[in-house]
Amino acid sequence: MAAAAPPPPPSAAAITLPESTPSGHTLFSRIRLATVDDVPHIHKLIHQMAVFERLTHLFQATADSLAATLFPPNAPPPFTSFTVFLLELSNSPFFPSQNPHFTPVLKPHHLDLPIADPEKEIFRSSAAGATGDVTVGGFVLFFPNYSSFLAKPGFYIEDIFVRECYRRKGLGQMLLSTLAAQAAKMGYGRVEWVVLDWNANAIKFYEQMGAEILPEWRICRLTGESLQAYANLNI
Amino acid sequence: MAAAAPPPPPSAAAITLPESTPSGHTLFSRIRLATVDDVPHIHKLIHQMAVFERLTHLFQATADSLAATLFPPNAPPPFTSFTVFLLELSNSPFFPSQNPHFTPVLKPHHLDLPIADPEKEIFRSSAAGATGDVTVGGFVLFFPNYSSFLAKPGFYIEDIFVRECYRRKGLGQMLLSTLAAQAAKMGYGRVEWVVLDWNANAIKFYEQMGAEILPEWRICRLTGESLQAYANLNI
Repeated sequence: MAAAAPPPPPSAAAITLPESTPSGHTLFSRIRLATVDDVPHIHKLIHQMAVFERLTHLFQATADSLAATLFPPNAPPPFTSFTVFLLELSNSPFFPSQNPHFTPVLKPHHLDLPIADPEKEIFRSSAAGATGDVTVGGFVLFFPNYSSFLAKPGFYIEDIFVRECYRRKGLGQMLLSTLAAQAAKMGYGRVEWVVLDWNANAIKFYEQMGAEILPEWRICRLTGESLQAYANLNI
Repeated sequence: MAAAAPPPPPSAAAITLPESTPSGHTLFSRIRLATVDDVPHIHKLIHQMAVFERLTHLFQATADSLAATLFPPNAPPPFTSFTVFLLELSNSPFFPSQNPHFTPVLKPHHLDLPIADPEKEIFRSSAAGATGDVTVGGFVLFFPNYSSFLAKPGFYIEDIFVRECYRRKGLGQMLLSTLAAQAAKMGYGRVEWVVLDWNANAIKFYEQMGAEILPEWRICRLTGESLQAYANLNI
């Protein structure tokens, strides 16, 4: 799969691209609600995440199955069910825009050097919004969960992912902060997600953002044939 | 809180209650969708669960806050958001009944001795359905989750609980099986929940039901002041 190809090695050419300036480079970012038109990109991002997590043996999603389950006909409003925020990047500023459910978050990032994106064509965004090219750089997929101890909903983050060439620029933090801000604005009690215990960089990053890592809880999962065995069970 | 009071010690009186018979005793059970009328009982059950999990310092729910969040005005249909199955018990058979979303599951349990329920009055059910008294014995609270690798929804179990005097009779398994059957019937990919790593009895029980316990994942939680700090964040 093209999206999983390793990036080319850095080269001197990267700093002579037209968008670079002598005094640095600005990368413009936008976080907006995804739509069904974004599914091909979301599908590629989820596959890249599976590669990173060493879990491609569990990856069964297709663009069609994602579209049918994330954006079904008569889908409930964003935030009440499965919801995706998409991170887009551009070398030119985004136009401010409105959405009845969520006003996109815009932020410029000042970098020493422009980023050479080896998958720029694959992730070219179909959404309007900037004077120049727009590239999809990451996403967060989440849905409401519920704490019975707090008697409050919260958000559970199923996936949060930034493409490799855009990492270590504060973009993952921007995705997580945007979701935390939305949860706090809605009066929700918690934002929760899971992390692999060997992913020390991610754990450090989450703790710096104020999250607790709960050491005692383990996930239990009933799936595949073990779940199907219950389908016609005479309880 | 009365519900958390320890049960009286077993006594010979327990086996001379009117509902016992020389040849054994039948306990009739029903699992049905809970309604807002069940909230006072659900509230007491959640508190008992907090006591069992040694987490009463996190317990903030009131009957009112549970009612407002589990059964809001214009609530979406069961299974599409936060949903509660209630376990009821009676010494007499339940009448078969219909619900447009879920047909209650009925099952008789043959016991050597009747159960002395020290909280029978507190947990008397307000719902019709049997010729005799009906008691609330447990519940499961769950909501849809989503696997992006499968591109399928599933169910996440927030709570599953059976009152102490009704444990070790197969009722917890009946609650979990009912939910697994519902998930399989809906074509969902997974049923997931979490367990405390010191709760060896529960882990053994779940594994016997066909569940995997995932050793590598840790829960991350952003809550309280750490979450509120994002409320007015200029991302």
